[in-house]
Amino acid sequence: FPSQGSKLWGGRFVGDTDPIMEKFNASIAYDQRMWDADIRGSKAYVKALERAKLVSTDEMEQILHGMSCGYMFSQELIGAPAGKLHTGRSRNDQVVTDMRLWLRSAISTLTDNALQLITTMVERAAAEIEVLFPGYTHMQRAQPIRWSHWILSHAVALSRDVERLQELKKRVNVLPLGSGAIAGTPFDIDRELLQRELGFDSISLNSMDATGQRDFVAEFLFWASLCLTHLSKMAEDLILYSTKEFSFITLSDAYSTGSSLMPQKKNADSLELIRSKAGRAFGRCAGFMMTLKSLPSTYNKDLQEDKEAMFDCYDNVQAVLQVTTGVMSTLKINQTVMEAALSPDMLATDLAYYLVRKGVPFREAHGLSGKAVFTAESKNIALNQLTVEDLTAISPLFGSDVSSVWDYRSSVEQYSAPGGTAKSSVAAQVEHLRNWLKKHAQ
Amino acid sequence: FPSQGSKLWGGRFVGDTDPIMEKFNASIAYDQRMWDADIRGSKAYVKALERAKLVSTDEMEQILHGMSCGYMFSQELIGAPAGKLHTGRSRNDQVVTDMRLWLRSAISTLTDNALQLITTMVERAAAEIEVLFPGYTHMQRAQPIRWSHWILSHAVALSRDVERLQELKKRVNVLPLGSGAIAGTPFDIDRELLQRELGFDSISLNSMDATGQRDFVAEFLFWASLCLTHLSKMAEDLILYSTKEFSFITLSDAYSTGSSLMPQKKNADSLELIRSKAGRAFGRCAGFMMTLKSLPSTYNKDLQEDKEAMFDCYDNVQAVLQVTTGVMSTLKINQTVMEAALSPDMLATDLAYYLVRKGVPFREAHGLSGKAVFTAESKNIALNQLTVEDLTAISPLFGSDVSSVWDYRSSVEQYSAPGGTAKSSVAAQVEHLRNWLKKHAQ
Amino acid sequence: FPSQGSKLWGGRFVGDTDPIMEKFNASIAYDQRMWDADIRGSKAYVKALERAKLVSTDEMEQILHGMSCGYMFSQELIGAPAGKLHTGRSRNDQVVTDMRLWLRSAISTLTDNALQLITTMVERAAAEIEVLFPGYTHMQRAQPIRWSHWILSHAVALSRDVERLQELKKRVNVLPLGSGAIAGTPFDIDRELLQRELGFDSISLNSMDATGQRDFVAEFLFWASLCLTHLSKMAEDLILYSTKEFSFITLSDAYSTGSSLMPQKKNADSLELIRSKAGRAFGRCAGFMMTLKSLPSTYNKDLQEDKEAMFDCYDNVQAVLQVTTGVMSTLKINQTVMEAALSPDMLATDLAYYLVRKGVPFREAHGLSGKAVFTAESKNIALNQLTVEDLTAISPLFGSDVSSVWDYRSSVEQYSAPGGTAKSSVAAQVEHLRNWLKKHAQ
Amino acid sequence: FPSQGSKLWGGRFVGDTDPIMEKFNASIAYDQRMWDADIRGSKAYVKALERAKLVSTDEMEQILHGMSCGYMFSQELIGAPAGKLHTGRSRNDQVVTDMRLWLRSAISTLTDNALQLITTMVERAAAEIEVLFPGYTHMQRAQPIRWSHWILSHAVALSRDVERLQELKKRVNVLPLGSGAIAGTPFDIDRELLQRELGFDSISLNSMDATGQRDFVAEFLFWASLCLTHLSKMAEDLILYSTKEFSFITLSDAYSTGSSLMPQKKNADSLELIRSKAGRAFGRCAGFMMTLKSLPSTYNKDLQEDKEAMFDCYDNVQAVLQVTTGVMSTLKINQTVMEAALSPDMLATDLAYYLVRKGVPFREAHGLSGKAVFTAESKNIALNQLTVEDLTAISPLFGSDVSSVWDYRSSVEQYSAPGGTAKSSVAAQVEHLRNWLKKHAQ
Repeated sequence: FPSQGSKLWGGRFVGDTDPIMEKFNASIAYDQRMWDADIRGSKAYVKALERAKLVSTDEMEQILHGMSCGYMFSQELIGAPAGKLHTGRSRNDQVVTDMRLWLRSAISTLTDNALQLITTMVERAAAEIEVLFPGYTHMQRAQPIRWSHWILSHAVALSRDVERLQELKKRVNVLPLGSGAIAGTPFDIDRELLQRELGFDSISLNSMDATGQRDFVAEFLFWASLCLTHLSKMAEDLILYSTKEFSFITLSDAYSTGSSLMPQKKNADSLELIRSKAGRAFGRCAGFMMTLKSLPSTYNKDLQEDKEAMFDCYDNVQAVLQVTTGVMSTLKINQTVMEAALSPDMLATDLAYYLVRKGVPFREAHGLSGKAVFTAESKNIALNQLTVEDLTAISPLFGSDVSSVWDYRSSVEQYSAPGGTAKSSVAAQVEHLRNWLKKHAQ
Repeated sequence: FPSQGSKLWGGRFVGDTDPIMEKFNASIAYDQRMWDADIRGSKAYVKALERAKLVSTDEMEQILHGMSCGYMFSQELIGAPAGKLHTGRSRNDQVVTDMRLWLRSAISTLTDNALQLITTMVERAAAEIEVLFPGYTHMQRAQPIRWSHWILSHAVALSRDVERLQELKKRVNVLPLGSGAIAGTPFDIDRELLQRELGFDSISLNSMDATGQRDFVAEFLFWASLCLTHLSKMAEDLILYSTKEFSFITLSDAYSTGSSLMPQKKNADSLELIRSKAGRAFGRCAGFMMTLKSLPSTYNKDLQEDKEAMFDCYDNVQAVLQVTTGVMSTLKINQTVMEAALSPDMLATDLAYYLVRKGVPFREAHGLSGKAVFTAESKNIALNQLTVEDLTAISPLFGSDVSSVWDYRSSVEQYSAPGGTAKSSVAAQVEHLRNWLKKHAQ
Repeated sequence: FPSQGSKLWGGRFVGDTDPIMEKFNASIAYDQRMWDADIRGSKAYVKALERAKLVSTDEMEQILHGMSCGYMFSQELIGAPAGKLHTGRSRNDQVVTDMRLWLRSAISTLTDNALQLITTMVERAAAEIEVLFPGYTHMQRAQPIRWSHWILSHAVALSRDVERLQELKKRVNVLPLGSGAIAGTPFDIDRELLQRELGFDSISLNSMDATGQRDFVAEFLFWASLCLTHLSKMAEDLILYSTKEFSFITLSDAYSTGSSLMPQKKNADSLELIRSKAGRAFGRCAGFMMTLKSLPSTYNKDLQEDKEAMFDCYDNVQAVLQVTTGVMSTLKINQTVMEAALSPDMLATDLAYYLVRKGVPFREAHGLSGKAVFTAESKNIALNQLTVEDLTAISPLFGSDVSSVWDYRSSVEQYSAPGGTAKSSVAAQVEHLRNWLKKHAQ
Repeated sequence: FPSQGSKLWGGRFVGDTDPIMEKFNASIAYDQRMWDADIRGSKAYVKALERAKLVSTDEMEQILHGMSCGYMFSQELIGAPAGKLHTGRSRNDQVVTDMRLWLRSAISTLTDNALQLITTMVERAAAEIEVLFPGYTHMQRAQPIRWSHWILSHAVALSRDVERLQELKKRVNVLPLGSGAIAGTPFDIDRELLQRELGFDSISLNSMDATGQRDFVAEFLFWASLCLTHLSKMAEDLILYSTKEFSFITLSDAYSTGSSLMPQKKNADSLELIRSKAGRAFGRCAGFMMTLKSLPSTYNKDLQEDKEAMFDCYDNVQAVLQVTTGVMSTLKINQTVMEAALSPDMLATDLAYYLVRKGVPFREAHGLSGKAVFTAESKNIALNQLTVEDLTAISPLFGSDVSSVWDYRSSVEQYSAPGGTAKSSVAAQVEHLRNWLKKHAQ
């Protein structure tokens, strides 16, 4: 909060100030977002000052009243009592306390947003468990899977994000107040009192570290990057699925935009924005890490880059989580198209397994199934249109029971080990996540 | 400019819109900075429409008049003529034209700012050419050099930045208008006319590339990063030189800040901010590159990240260049301290060269001079306090003329090859840069 | 080259060395790649030494002979003459000279590789100019375009990469030798002679800058990142086009890989690798920029990170350019599928333009065409199946001549302005690039 | 492991392969590092196959024996039993299992290295607790602190790194084996058996996520970046402290290097390398995050970038931790110089607190102390040389007892709140960390 009011260091400076430098140096634009946190921190601090007999009870009341009336920023308060508020406190420990209070609350909101999205996805997965469609690897059709299996693969990634966010929160929720500028406080400031008043989990261990480190910001920026990378992956899938060529899903108009030129266009703008934000957040992370790199110990003004990066990542993750929830609640799936996209060649692995079950080593079975695929392609027919003769020419172990391989629903039901795409297995994933959600509800 | 006025794609959509999505999708906040560029582009376009007989001369005049009256954004214009302004033009080619016009002008401003800084540095170097101080490598005292040699080392780096910016400008100054959304324009729009009207150097070659590429933005972001990395290096030097321990320079109060806690502190905040911005700019570059990576061809909404990154880098480079100019114009050097920091061990290389001139191979001379340094350290005396006896014990080639080695001014004068730290050589650098500045004055 | 032979600084150090530190400090693994460059630089340097009478003609011949016999690295040479090779030369100016020689040659190779790829693309575009397919924006079908128009959109981007590489080459091709460790050279070393011998374009201006700056490396790393980002975009398109759902292209088996599990799979591994390398190269760029950030002036050991980054980016760009050339020479297009993917709704813009040509303002025409699209969708028919009655209900200006709109080939032929997708316009792009290639052939 | 032996997909492909593509596609160079992990995973898998009756007990024994004999990579095994090893297993789940086994072990090593470094630092802090020196903020002398307080500020940061690494380990230690290529396994593979055999904490929840996510790699790369950023900060401090101007510390020769040109130079190369690696590691993180960004679901070949990044970060963090331990065990402090660097102006805050204790509001006291600093500077004397008259002219509250302010040891003793620089407070930090080390010893 350097640029406001009568400068605290007014006693010494005699030179003029460059207006461009003033503007460059100013942080008021983003400090405002921490106003509430700052008031809260200052209220606790004045109580500790009173306990240490550095302000009288009367002065404490005056200051608390002044702050409740909403004067902007604590240092704006006037009169002698206000002049005592900064006793033993430096901007270095004050501002980082504000940031931690702010971010703790932001994490709470983001957790809610993420849980809401996961809930939406899990319930959608439960509701649409019967729908099959192609699973892709390398963007090529691989094996039939359940649509719900796809949804849950993304929900599971997001549940890890929530868990990481909770771990990060512990490291955010550490009280730096009482660390002064670098050396600590020489007054009888009760840091345990401050901790309790402000709801922190613990107290910083070393005053130089407390005022000069921004690990919690760096961690949050990376958390945002990884969470948005997960959502960029889901968006990429959905953009693909909403192309004319795939046509697996239809986005709600609320999450689409038209073209200024082409009247027929309906663009998945929401998904493209979701996809783009991973870049933006990681840029903030990269920028801040680069600012930190090789900075010497303790507070240096370079750290002023911390706040805009933190706010911007928060705003973007929050918007993305909410928009993604909207998208996932409202998109329509085109089940007929999805199931029509399954093709017999996607069962080539099952064809190899048919031979495995007859005792053929997998490596050999894979080669024989590959020959079957090649034969079908050469004949320009589907794999399941090969006759038993065609197949026995490849391996005498093929019999008429091979026809059992060609059923997509039977195929997926085989994958019943934990984590697989069989109905029982997907249902178990739904149950697991519902329990997880209950446990993590705030 | 998607979120304004009656949506162009209003004819088709029937669903509602999510307010969070609306806000997420909006670009109005940063599009405003391109208002002037947009008006300019639209004025040229309406002339091309008139030439193609797609608007009448009267309609053209009406539209030109409306835009001159400052209606915000061209699509805000009302009435039938305005409805014709978008004929054959898409937001895809319109907005990228606006960006190129804006950036061209921004480059012009940055070039001026950079030339002003280089001029300040070159003239300071000319004025203070007699001042010697320690040159450092690995942050250890290496050899005596001129203070002006140090200044010019940074000026030369900035001159490369200006040259790169001019090259970049050529690639910015290419007209995309007339590319439509993807396929070009089906009307008789005279792109050469547009080019002349808008002062572009050339016309984009391929409409898909023209609307979907943002190379010029990526290049600019990286340019900003590298330029600010140069200034971070200079700032790091100056922060070091302004520590109590070095005390080579004193920053003007206008570029310093005090401490809220410690009354004696005078912090080089300006330099710390300069140092920090390289991180911020590179973060923008990293974010945008990551947004671009693996994006498919043509316009995708993800590209909307381009503008904030471009504006932010511009704002920061501009502020940094101006603040650095202020810093470099007003800092005071402490010549006595600088020269007192020179010490005889910094002449150990010259001592080796003394032997080289007497025919000793350098590798051996280096070893012998090292022994002299070790002997002096062992005796706890300065290198130039070794007696001739001490030295001849190391090599019989040392004679009484070795005393000529211990003069700092004579030492630097030896380095008279181009680029060296001799007075003639530094003066030649000053002359070179003065000529270069004349050539690059806009 | 610090860890080899008898250490140059052997005269002074008395402590032991930590083997982990030794390994950490070593650069031999990557310095080897610059062996040829180092020999070349040393040969020129010994000639300058002879001219300066610092070695005799005989000694020069001995050293030149020794180096021609392929002793590894110049400092490995033995005997008194070799001990003179480092006279006035520091590792600081030696190694950066080696790097510039190496990179200059690498740029030449990359230029060849890029030109070969562009040639392949341009000639393929010329050969397949008649093929139409859907142009996409936002990954949604937008307007019919020529396949060649798509190819050229990527070729044009690559041609900018070549141009940037040539500009960068000028800044690489500057001689630092003669700058010593920081202060220049105190001997009569003829830097113009060195420049001519080594084929440099110019001589570095300031010895501190020359030895401490790595702009040319940073620029090259970013160049590699942007070039690979272009190829990641093309790869993304091609991966999409090679999905079963699109089926526009078939990769050669040479650029595909199968699956260890699924016998039917044919994965576009080559394209995925191409797509991935933009990340890798940018990571190298980010890492090096972060290493540079806030580093003080002149040589610091941190700069040792420069070489691995440079080599890795070179290796990857070179491989990607060659593999992409292979992919583009051998992929097969499925013209029937491509043309079958065109659909009448992609002509909705042309339908609006039909009205524009009858005097309707574009904004209104766009709305009316949108209504036609909506009507067709409501009726579940294709846009071109709307009857004239359907259309006149939307606007009385529609007449029976509207049928002329529904021809894809006629549609693309309208886009004949420079840069558009009409045959004449695409052919002009081919011509332009053929001329450009001639001009840039090395 | 795609490029070895007879290709698994050999049954189908008929085309030739481009040698450049082959090399580009190969991962053998870095896969070798996971050999042990691969053997271990395959041994567990063959037991699960036997349990599922997919291999006989005899075949299992043959395979186990073959692998124990150290054949390179499991797929190199010959004979029919070996051909069964891949039954139901894909490279997708196999390789990611290998990576998790490898990284789990690597984390264990890094934890040891980090604990060793922290132990060194804590014990050094305990031993040198009496040493005072200047604490800096903004690189300007701020307040007197204990040298041990500085050491511990870095040790505390590293202890957070260890805690984060332990959290990360939980997420690494999840079994993906049994996920197949995408859909799970259709055989009766007992994943709990695999978990127990391989010592995993839990089993992956969803097969698509398990094979396609690399969160654990991204987290590790960022962990390495943040840990190395902490060490870059410490290195920057130490580089500063080892300059001639500061002269607070002297590095052991084992961690220093000389100059090829300047015989007197002793460079802190070890510290510069430490400082540089934060950039390198973050570059790897940035590169991999960019590769991940907007990648679609499941395995894509792009993910092959994961391994080199992981190995490189591991190698660098390990080397840096060990070298830093060496540096911190062997550097010598120059206590006399450190204490001589304390100056009376660093007690200006205490002077203000003197007035605060006499009832002056801090804001006012700060101003008055600032005036005292200004007066002393004007008179060109040290702050403690101001007479009582000088001071009472500034405030009548100054009395002769002000002399008690000017003692550095008394000053630091005031900062006795938790985290402060008083002896009791620093000793408490030492105790805290010793207990923490005991708790975290592996």
